[in-house]
Amino acid sequence: MKTIEWENNKLKLINQTKIPDELEYVYCDNYNEVIVAIKDMIVRGAPAIGVAASFGMALAYLNGEDMGRAAEEIKSARPTAINLFWAVDRVLNSDNPLEEALKMYCEDMDTNRAIGKYGCEIIDDGDTVLTHCNAGALACVDYGTALGVIRAAHSQSKNINVICDETRPRGQGARLSVWELQQDNIPVKLIPDVASGFLMSQGKIDKVVIGADRIAKGGVVNKIGSFMVAMAAKQHDVPFYVAAPLSTFDKDASIFDTVIEERDGDEVRYYGGARICPEGTEVINPAFDITPSEFITGIITENGIIDPI
Amino acid sequence: MKTIEWENNKLKLINQTKIPDELEYVYCDNYNEVIVAIKDMIVRGAPAIGVAASFGMALAYLNGEDMGRAAEEIKSARPTAINLFWAVDRVLNSDNPLEEALKMYCEDMDTNRAIGKYGCEIIDDGDTVLTHCNAGALACVDYGTALGVIRAAHSQSKNINVICDETRPRGQGARLSVWELQQDNIPVKLIPDVASGFLMSQGKIDKVVIGADRIAKGGVVNKIGSFMVAMAAKQHDVPFYVAAPLSTFDKDASIFDTVIEERDGDEVRYYGGARICPEGTEVINPAFDITPSEFITGIITENGIIDPI
Repeated sequence: MKTIEWENNKLKLINQTKIPDELEYVYCDNYNEVIVAIKDMIVRGAPAIGVAASFGMALAYLNGEDMGRAAEEIKSARPTAINLFWAVDRVLNSDNPLEEALKMYCEDMDTNRAIGKYGCEIIDDGDTVLTHCNAGALACVDYGTALGVIRAAHSQSKNINVICDETRPRGQGARLSVWELQQDNIPVKLIPDVASGFLMSQGKIDKVVIGADRIAKGGVVNKIGSFMVAMAAKQHDVPFYVAAPLSTFDKDASIFDTVIEERDGDEVRYYGGARICPEGTEVINPAFDITPSEFITGIITENGIIDPI
Repeated sequence: MKTIEWENNKLKLINQTKIPDELEYVYCDNYNEVIVAIKDMIVRGAPAIGVAASFGMALAYLNGEDMGRAAEEIKSARPTAINLFWAVDRVLNSDNPLEEALKMYCEDMDTNRAIGKYGCEIIDDGDTVLTHCNAGALACVDYGTALGVIRAAHSQSKNINVICDETRPRGQGARLSVWELQQDNIPVKLIPDVASGFLMSQGKIDKVVIGADRIAKGGVVNKIGSFMVAMAAKQHDVPFYVAAPLSTFDKDASIFDTVIEERDGDEVRYYGGARICPEGTEVINPAFDITPSEFITGIITENGIIDPI
């Protein structure tokens, strides 16, 4: 199963808003459709956004569009994921946009397997591993970063259990990570986001592995809630790892300068179609948070495990 | 508005599972109906459970039931809230069960106003106060403990803003606390549970006030997620207060011996009627967690603000 494919000169995406209830595909044949897919989170997860954006640029090229304008518009689809900017610029500066996009597509698959290879060394037989949100196959072309580490450990016949937290407001843990792991027959349990601290205090979580949307000086930006898991992990001496490709790094920037996307309050007000609070309730809905480096045990990349920067 | 009333020899309860969409009442004329109301969380919140249980004992008495058996059965409705045990024993050991229950009903209202009076001293003009779950009028006969503190500060014309977190899995923050505060025209915003740590790191939360289900040596048991808020508060030097009547204290016990209720996994799997994860997903759903004393700035009681025990 691939989250992203290039088929008959179209970008084919798994519609992630429909998982786990339906496996539906969305096809984009121009870059504006790619922008909509990124904004509406039909495709989400930093590496997947990067590869989708690169095919968006390829579509702009094939359709004879203004490449500079396409680049600006695609970059503005979501403000936080660094891979989006990196991917767009790489295609923009290439001689053959489609070839470059296809190269990045293949690289993403190789990168995730390398992350899995290095990362599985930190997973011990018998571990229960917590992950937040979805840094899985659905966040990449396939395999995943954080879930790639788990897949690699499982494929080495390590006896592991995974705990996914729900990841409100959009439920990527409950909908996507649980579903992915079930497809691979990896034992998985779901918890509400509020429960990981208590489970750590009971000694029921051995490791945390999450993904990243941006890594810069001072820490890691990832899905809102990552920081609360990190604080709980530090309090209980639970190793806390971030798994991400080097394209997630913005080495010269400070993480604290990151623009944190504020998303529509209806993501919080409604869940599964139902309103969960009084009508018209005011909402604060930041999509990401910043986990400072002091909370991070290591960052698992395709070149090995490194210290946070 | 009263959460609990005694009317024509019946216990009248606001059906809290229907708030905020409907203000529906449930009437109990025997103690078994009270047990169902407690188990199904038609009535919830430690003080409200205590008062409802005392009327359950009064109903057993009026109906000529075996009081010892009624006491045992009511106590087994929920294992964690200490007020439940305290209330049942108090009525069991009284000469006139109905009179005792009515006395406890009135005491609860007085207690909450005293908690509000002492508690509002820690709230400064301009504060943004975070509360978790619902320790409001709906958790008591009226007024509330944590929300009583907020109501008292608001009634002194202090300019305050409240942030309620959603409180998955059952959404008491989103459904109940937001609704209560809106009824009183107290400015309130809703956030996902995962967001409080980030908002604290941005300096957007000045105080935390929550309720308690049990206070004993070493800390406080309260709704699952309280501990994660407490860890975030400590990390950011945000004062973290617990507001609770003295009946919540179990002074001779260790908090770490508390039986933490594990509730039905469907509370996590379904929300607003919709399934939020793949069918048959395994779930861990602890209803409470333990916040150790070192994370607690003070406990606001009807006798004043005291240190955790």
